[in-house]
Amino acid sequence: MGGSVSGRIFRVTTFGESHGPALGCVVDGCPAGIPLEKEDIARDLRRRRPGAGGAMSARIEEDEPEILSGLFEGKTLGTPIAVAVRNTGQRSADYGDLRDSYRPGHADWTWEAKYGFRDYRGGGRSSGRETAGRVAAGAVARAFLADRGIALRAWVSRAAGVEAPAPGGAGFDLDEAERNVLRIPGKAAAEESLRRLAELADRGDSAGGIVSCRVRGLPPGLGEPVFGKITARIGAAVLSIGACRGVEFGKGFAAADLPGSVHNDAPLYPPSVSPPVETEVFKTNHAGGSLGGISTGMDFLFRAAFKPAASIAAPQASVDKRGLPRDISIRGRHDLCILPRVVPVVEAMAALVIADLILLQRCARA
Amino acid sequence: MGGSVSGRIFRVTTFGESHGPALGCVVDGCPAGIPLEKEDIARDLRRRRPGAGGAMSARIEEDEPEILSGLFEGKTLGTPIAVAVRNTGQRSADYGDLRDSYRPGHADWTWEAKYGFRDYRGGGRSSGRETAGRVAAGAVARAFLADRGIALRAWVSRAAGVEAPAPGGAGFDLDEAERNVLRIPGKAAAEESLRRLAELADRGDSAGGIVSCRVRGLPPGLGEPVFGKITARIGAAVLSIGACRGVEFGKGFAAADLPGSVHNDAPLYPPSVSPPVETEVFKTNHAGGSLGGISTGMDFLFRAAFKPAASIAAPQASVDKRGLPRDISIRGRHDLCILPRVVPVVEAMAALVIADLILLQRCARA
Amino acid sequence: MGGSVSGRIFRVTTFGESHGPALGCVVDGCPAGIPLEKEDIARDLRRRRPGAGGAMSARIEEDEPEILSGLFEGKTLGTPIAVAVRNTGQRSADYGDLRDSYRPGHADWTWEAKYGFRDYRGGGRSSGRETAGRVAAGAVARAFLADRGIALRAWVSRAAGVEAPAPGGAGFDLDEAERNVLRIPGKAAAEESLRRLAELADRGDSAGGIVSCRVRGLPPGLGEPVFGKITARIGAAVLSIGACRGVEFGKGFAAADLPGSVHNDAPLYPPSVSPPVETEVFKTNHAGGSLGGISTGMDFLFRAAFKPAASIAAPQASVDKRGLPRDISIRGRHDLCILPRVVPVVEAMAALVIADLILLQRCARA
Amino acid sequence: MGGSVSGRIFRVTTFGESHGPALGCVVDGCPAGIPLEKEDIARDLRRRRPGAGGAMSARIEEDEPEILSGLFEGKTLGTPIAVAVRNTGQRSADYGDLRDSYRPGHADWTWEAKYGFRDYRGGGRSSGRETAGRVAAGAVARAFLADRGIALRAWVSRAAGVEAPAPGGAGFDLDEAERNVLRIPGKAAAEESLRRLAELADRGDSAGGIVSCRVRGLPPGLGEPVFGKITARIGAAVLSIGACRGVEFGKGFAAADLPGSVHNDAPLYPPSVSPPVETEVFKTNHAGGSLGGISTGMDFLFRAAFKPAASIAAPQASVDKRGLPRDISIRGRHDLCILPRVVPVVEAMAALVIADLILLQRCARA
Repeated sequence: MGGSVSGRIFRVTTFGESHGPALGCVVDGCPAGIPLEKEDIARDLRRRRPGAGGAMSARIEEDEPEILSGLFEGKTLGTPIAVAVRNTGQRSADYGDLRDSYRPGHADWTWEAKYGFRDYRGGGRSSGRETAGRVAAGAVARAFLADRGIALRAWVSRAAGVEAPAPGGAGFDLDEAERNVLRIPGKAAAEESLRRLAELADRGDSAGGIVSCRVRGLPPGLGEPVFGKITARIGAAVLSIGACRGVEFGKGFAAADLPGSVHNDAPLYPPSVSPPVETEVFKTNHAGGSLGGISTGMDFLFRAAFKPAASIAAPQASVDKRGLPRDISIRGRHDLCILPRVVPVVEAMAALVIADLILLQRCARA
Repeated sequence: MGGSVSGRIFRVTTFGESHGPALGCVVDGCPAGIPLEKEDIARDLRRRRPGAGGAMSARIEEDEPEILSGLFEGKTLGTPIAVAVRNTGQRSADYGDLRDSYRPGHADWTWEAKYGFRDYRGGGRSSGRETAGRVAAGAVARAFLADRGIALRAWVSRAAGVEAPAPGGAGFDLDEAERNVLRIPGKAAAEESLRRLAELADRGDSAGGIVSCRVRGLPPGLGEPVFGKITARIGAAVLSIGACRGVEFGKGFAAADLPGSVHNDAPLYPPSVSPPVETEVFKTNHAGGSLGGISTGMDFLFRAAFKPAASIAAPQASVDKRGLPRDISIRGRHDLCILPRVVPVVEAMAALVIADLILLQRCARA
Repeated sequence: MGGSVSGRIFRVTTFGESHGPALGCVVDGCPAGIPLEKEDIARDLRRRRPGAGGAMSARIEEDEPEILSGLFEGKTLGTPIAVAVRNTGQRSADYGDLRDSYRPGHADWTWEAKYGFRDYRGGGRSSGRETAGRVAAGAVARAFLADRGIALRAWVSRAAGVEAPAPGGAGFDLDEAERNVLRIPGKAAAEESLRRLAELADRGDSAGGIVSCRVRGLPPGLGEPVFGKITARIGAAVLSIGACRGVEFGKGFAAADLPGSVHNDAPLYPPSVSPPVETEVFKTNHAGGSLGGISTGMDFLFRAAFKPAASIAAPQASVDKRGLPRDISIRGRHDLCILPRVVPVVEAMAALVIADLILLQRCARA
Repeated sequence: MGGSVSGRIFRVTTFGESHGPALGCVVDGCPAGIPLEKEDIARDLRRRRPGAGGAMSARIEEDEPEILSGLFEGKTLGTPIAVAVRNTGQRSADYGDLRDSYRPGHADWTWEAKYGFRDYRGGGRSSGRETAGRVAAGAVARAFLADRGIALRAWVSRAAGVEAPAPGGAGFDLDEAERNVLRIPGKAAAEESLRRLAELADRGDSAGGIVSCRVRGLPPGLGEPVFGKITARIGAAVLSIGACRGVEFGKGFAAADLPGSVHNDAPLYPPSVSPPVETEVFKTNHAGGSLGGISTGMDFLFRAAFKPAASIAAPQASVDKRGLPRDISIRGRHDLCILPRVVPVVEAMAALVIADLILLQRCARA
């Protein structure tokens, strides 16, 4: 793992600064023969695009993907799949006054500490726009997973302090999550969140929240022992999304307070026996679909916390390059709450890891 | 990164089943010339060993490390450092009746699903004993970090539902954490936790908890962009420890509810200016020492949640290989609460990642 | 190493089929702050382009590189550098009749064996055109090396059975190598080679040859022990070029017949002492610049053998998809001798490896 | 891949200095369920041991392997297989006078240049003894390959300037290669080589030679495109053996002089059709079993050149640490010609690569 390359077999490289010519990805190691059309990638990129409404960035990007290689007659060739997305909506002039100072909560300071200088135009590669390449690559992974009956769904389970209905709970409605601008699976919670976001917007402030994800249809056996556990791999992938501050699986942090007699998931069938239709293999799923870092075949469940958007309109104290105090008020076109746009990124990252683990699992037995 | 190999430059491989001849590690990519003695490794292994008290496993292991290669005249050679730890205390007979069944909450079921069969003697490589190799490798990393003024300290911040004092709070005392058997940095909290553990023990049950970690002395600039963020790398490393259910950085999940105006950390000095002695570079540290996945030089802070120990004495319903119901009551010598023994493992995993990031940072500039 | 991703720190991914929309590369891990202009890349791509003359392919490609990311104000940012080269000159119709058969000496058969189907348009990714991405990436590496005083020069030392003058021998002239179409460092040898190539062209046949390379200015200490020796790394890089059949270092295969007393290179100065100006550190350089897989600082020298071009106009017996005999006569626009175009590819591959080894060497000492 | 870790899925790490406590390997990624006994590893290690006769080292090593992990009830578990081999026969005192000087042709000088200091006892990790770990790992790979009907055989095809019979030629006898001390497949050539080696021994000199290898039973389709070609992977593996100066495949360097009409291998059957028993799929095999870097299923053939042993008894001029001239005469127990002992190492390295490529090939198709 590291830098802009990720994965062991299903390997993705992303590239692109927020205000450079283009962003994109190259997926190496995708098996040959998977049905994939440009529209599969375009669809996921549209889900990631800035939308309308108070919660959204005002920057308009077409985000039309261009497939540069790897497809032939509607199928993957087994060769690298390169996708580029042009930057067309950027207005670098907006960022000119940030050239010599450091936005609080942003990576301006740390990138300069790391590299000695930085691309000050909109955050360069630490911009949320960097996720376009991830989503394009994730669409390739999703095509591979769909072919095998695996479906990923993420949603906003908390925004601006408002908790959404949980799976299995009253009012939980994933269709609703795709209808409202916040991707919250419950109409009332979405409306309450929007109301609070409007208040924050009035004060020039921003909000964070939590994204939840469910993977359905995973075969048992995915995940490598020790360092390559499915939780470690998915955890790294999700924590690599900008603004992510934590990740938990199954009962997560709440598991710390349960006794073993309650938390332990007991099997109802051995691995060699398929359960009857509509029957679960384990009695409970407190672990969220894995034991010892290897998938059980139950729903794989995790949640990720995201900090509030760092770009706020209200003035903040900072310093400039010479060390002098500088008040900063960010005028650009920014998301007040990035959570709904993070939803497809979380799905993409999980899809990339799972595609990799499926290929690795082919190597587990003689 | 996956399987039993981890890291890009400072690369560790671990090996060993809980009831095989030996466990251990090979560290490849450790720089030459670092002072390192066998005792540095032995000391960390002793911290990981089962101790006395109701919270601890009854299995006794000497865990004396044997250095097979890589050291010469008290310094690292730049060649692979191999360390082996013999298994001497195992009693495989204890596990004979688990051969044909699956312990709830354990990886028995998933390993068999993955590989088609399994080492049923005490969990094989999904046993907590597997961490001996991690701790030995971590000791090598810690020697490298100590040479550069970087110190890691982890402690149990919650056990059996009892919250310990937090850094900066009343009663927080890291020296106390090394005095009590639970590694809790506060005497009262430790006593209350032990009391609750005794109750659980009486019922044949077990407990989980939370480990916190602080890294002090990190230089700014550590962490690779995009997929190799310091949070993603540390997160994967900690989530790869058996029983870990979640990890969070800085304010963590609580950050999801804060407004940007509160959560944003503002710099007081630019990267090129060293602050006066005893002065912090950032006004606050809500992010826990990183921005955009790159270290700021502030204290690096994270917490990890661990589920209750899966091995409990109380009878649990499960199935056997043929699919018939089987009641399981685990008689082996097991930890009622693994948290205190996880402390050095968390430190080891963080040390391995940071050593790797320090080497990668040498490659960041022309 | 593997697939279309290569390198450990200075990591390159290439993409693109010969008749797809574009080819290119992404370089991840290039340090920040290296002066680099689009023209540096364009210049190397022009050296790789089909030229005029009987030895060359008739396909005309502009091969104008488009820099998609990673550069800012004339310097590398430390972020991935993506370069795309459009395919504009392809005429897929030429290949229609190869859809159902297998060209002798080509990878048609093996790609179909590997993936179950193939891109039959001009060889897909096993086409020599794939090297455009390598050369673009190599130009980035060369900018890094040039910044440190390291210069690479390759040339054709044998073509169609004609041996060119060798370094240090009479008539060896590297300037001449850039003047003649075959990149042979000697006018007479170039003329004799061209004469033989013309004869082969008349018969519808093709030729192979040998490319030699010299790297000057390497610091001592490059190369990792055991599996990462500089010879192993350069060897893999050069053998990965299509049509390469062998590689040798220093005296190469001839070393097999020398006694140790003749072949051993003796040092004249210890590593800690710099020799006087214009003085070599070793008495001889039979090893071609490395001992134990680590560079000595002497000229690094290697040679690589390339088989004759597989595409020939003369009819050849083969089979079709159903197993029926099929005579094949290749009409496309192909190189009769690929050697001169391989020269910049060999330089690029060596530059990529050396850039990687320089970064790895920064991690060798505490 | 670099340092002491190699392979992508079937991943091997080796460790150990020639005069440290032990050498060995860890194989991670070996599939579960492969029959493997300690004796399989011991047998290959015995082939690598110093033998009797003028061509051999006088150092006696038992080289009894100790399996530390990864086996259970006679089969691989899917977990890392760790093997240690004790150093028992070393006599470090022999090397005391080399502490401050640099043996010509050895890696003493370059290791010190790389790391700042070195293990002067017998070459540390640049010693030929380092190959014990490779051979142990290779034995694991061979068990996997044997299970699939793949057999590797290497032999000495040239030693001290004497060429042995070639496959298909008169007098070629692989059984003879295991009977004579030089592993030459022809009695007369072996005797002539031994005679010349005796002459060299009288003069305190040494000899090099060529090792040839044939892999039989490879399935078609092995090898990754572009950077991961089977030739590049095997080439790197073989060039990583100390003293290797070159490698070639099929016709090798001789291919450079052939016209395409002669060198091209034409298929007789398409990939989807199995040829009749005892019938080859290609008409010729000039390429030595691969096209475009992917295996054809024909015999895979390569040759590797090794320089003469660097340790010679005759006095050689060198320098010491202060830069003063120092005459060196190497008294240790060394091979006059390492070729016969390199044979099992070449087989091991090829086996490791092929095991990895077989696993990667499982990921090639949807």
